[in-house]
Amino acid sequence: MPAADPPPGAIARPDPDRALADLRKLRDLTGGPAGAERLAWTEGWRRARDFLRERLREIGVGDEVDEAGNLWAGMAGSRPGRLGVGSHLDAVPEGGWLDGALGVMAGLELLRAVKEAGAPPPRGLVLVDFADEEGARFGRSLFGSSAVAGRLVAAEVAELRDADGTSLVDALAENGVDLALAGRARSRADDLVAYLELHIEQGPVLEAERLPVAPVRGAMGIARRRWSIIGQAGHAGTTPLRLRRDPMLVAARAIVALRELALAEDARATVGSVEATPGVATAIPGRVEFTVDLRHESAVMLERLGDDFADVVEALAAEGGCTASAAALFDVAPTAFDRRLVELAAGLCAVRTGSSVELVSGPGHDAVEIARVVPTAMVFAPSIAGVSHAPEEDTDPADLRVALEVFFELALTVLDTF
Amino acid sequence: MPAADPPPGAIARPDPDRALADLRKLRDLTGGPAGAERLAWTEGWRRARDFLRERLREIGVGDEVDEAGNLWAGMAGSRPGRLGVGSHLDAVPEGGWLDGALGVMAGLELLRAVKEAGAPPPRGLVLVDFADEEGARFGRSLFGSSAVAGRLVAAEVAELRDADGTSLVDALAENGVDLALAGRARSRADDLVAYLELHIEQGPVLEAERLPVAPVRGAMGIARRRWSIIGQAGHAGTTPLRLRRDPMLVAARAIVALRELALAEDARATVGSVEATPGVATAIPGRVEFTVDLRHESAVMLERLGDDFADVVEALAAEGGCTASAAALFDVAPTAFDRRLVELAAGLCAVRTGSSVELVSGPGHDAVEIARVVPTAMVFAPSIAGVSHAPEEDTDPADLRVALEVFFELALTVLDTF
Repeated sequence: MPAADPPPGAIARPDPDRALADLRKLRDLTGGPAGAERLAWTEGWRRARDFLRERLREIGVGDEVDEAGNLWAGMAGSRPGRLGVGSHLDAVPEGGWLDGALGVMAGLELLRAVKEAGAPPPRGLVLVDFADEEGARFGRSLFGSSAVAGRLVAAEVAELRDADGTSLVDALAENGVDLALAGRARSRADDLVAYLELHIEQGPVLEAERLPVAPVRGAMGIARRRWSIIGQAGHAGTTPLRLRRDPMLVAARAIVALRELALAEDARATVGSVEATPGVATAIPGRVEFTVDLRHESAVMLERLGDDFADVVEALAAEGGCTASAAALFDVAPTAFDRRLVELAAGLCAVRTGSSVELVSGPGHDAVEIARVVPTAMVFAPSIAGVSHAPEEDTDPADLRVALEVFFELALTVLDTF
Repeated sequence: MPAADPPPGAIARPDPDRALADLRKLRDLTGGPAGAERLAWTEGWRRARDFLRERLREIGVGDEVDEAGNLWAGMAGSRPGRLGVGSHLDAVPEGGWLDGALGVMAGLELLRAVKEAGAPPPRGLVLVDFADEEGARFGRSLFGSSAVAGRLVAAEVAELRDADGTSLVDALAENGVDLALAGRARSRADDLVAYLELHIEQGPVLEAERLPVAPVRGAMGIARRRWSIIGQAGHAGTTPLRLRRDPMLVAARAIVALRELALAEDARATVGSVEATPGVATAIPGRVEFTVDLRHESAVMLERLGDDFADVVEALAAEGGCTASAAALFDVAPTAFDRRLVELAAGLCAVRTGSSVELVSGPGHDAVEIARVVPTAMVFAPSIAGVSHAPEEDTDPADLRVALEVFFELALTVLDTF
């Protein structure tokens, strides 16, 4: 009997409640009222991994850690090639219990259910717990997944240190990772036929749409700038408005204009920081700086919006007797996930929810890195009030169950059909 | 021969160039390329006063220091009562050479010229160098003049300390001033029939109007607030614009609206400081605070503008799903100078300039304090580019000469007619 034909009774039946039970155990083990304590490369993170390894041992699946510190645990299938599922166990300090952990525990349950079914799946299945997705300690997010995507450049991160002065190199070594060799994790992508990740949305859209789950079709590109408006400092009492060259007024007008531009194109535009110099109540500032974080799923639109905003700021500055300039802080191109996987996910979501809403991720995810080298899609579960990276991060258990079920259906379908 | 009738030849002829020569000597003695070093209650300030005392000795006029540290030097007139003239020798750190010093040296020259004329003037004349006008070291400006105006409350300043931790009480004692007795300086106002002060404008209006001098009819009232707009913090990537409650947008709209409101009423409105929390490029702020410094010469208008702006901010906040509140930082009522003195000054200015422009001071001055208890007026000389409180502070010597001449004419007229 060929291995590709499992016995009729050997159908994997993953159970959302077992995944939820694992998530709650992990929460109790590596966190408390002040939130998750699973900062990458620290004791809390290693404790989370030990918890995962114990569960893997219980179901008889071995694990290995690659050169970038990612943990892989899988089984072969009837045919070559494997479906990757997972996310990350690391968390920001005082983080939430679901961010990353949801995807890892979903993958664990899938592995467990497939293992319990007895026969090898049509394709191999591998759970991956990516290392240091958050970058919360050294400022380099997506460490492990970018290594698998072939985009980790050791020289660019070799000098990073945490707030205590500990070097990334030392922290890695403490966890058995040699930065110089981390790039070799790239080969882990070679036998992946697809990668799927369940994650919480970390935003308010699903809650607003009253949806327990939705497919994610890609990730927005980001263009982040620091704008400086230079005018003429002066005494608040001595300079009539008509004689001012006030960069604060220019900045305020620009922030209002940014909103209008972004709203028209369904972009995300955020001014998170504004700083006036000298910054005292009794002085017209000589300089005002503000950051603009602009996101869109279309690279063309992202560039056009950036250009349009620059034109607006420069016109407002000229009108106000000021000068304006922008410094690039961060740029990342949009990512489109694999359309066949997205449509499969969309179909399964629509069956459950009746909605055809597709999301585009604003933040980065391991899946966004992996999408560069492997057909990839994501599924999002809602976040209550859109809150994440905080102890209050939560999702209605009923929604989590639906999202887990859809994710399991998606993964099992991919195992069967890819 | 009655003392009220001086001999025909005894007309005082103050010389602007002697005042300018004193100013330059003072600048060389108590400053350098980094600006004036005459911070109140320090060695540099005492050196400036010693310079003034030497000049007074040369012309045979004694001086005394009152309970608040103000230096008075004068002569009796034919009739009782004295005209006060002066300003302050203290300066902000790295300050300008003219701020305060111009008025003191103008008064010195007036005293010298009247003394040289030989006969007692129709009224007494007294030069006053007020102590600690700037408040740059302890944060309490107008120390000496507010004592003379009867508005210095010892208990309110008793705990003040400078950046090094030295208490105001100790710094005063080092200069022979007992804070508990400072209020007694109030009696110095009793024999003043008028007070006149020449000062630089510290703003750009006279330069813009190409005027070397102008009368000042009063000082604006100030209403200073710190506005807090509270919204909902969130991830820059995860929250669509339509689901945001963004206090930055509300603040920006409020700043733009403030400009329109103030422009319509010829008020001065300044947003000198804006602070976003958490204040990072990747987060929608949860809170944005900004200061509003609102000034107008009419108390009624100042209140109305403040109320109108509060209405606007609250409406914008409500529209943006935020809440807004304001904390009072500082309030001072407008001051109108003595109309008879202002009109006299205006007439003398108009003869020289052909202009009927009257200024209203935005910043406070010793004259604004004294105006509460003595008929007072000021005359302003221009400031190049409106710059003050900086080493670059300067005025064209030709303009200074005209301003000094007008000030001398004004003072001599008041001596004759008040």
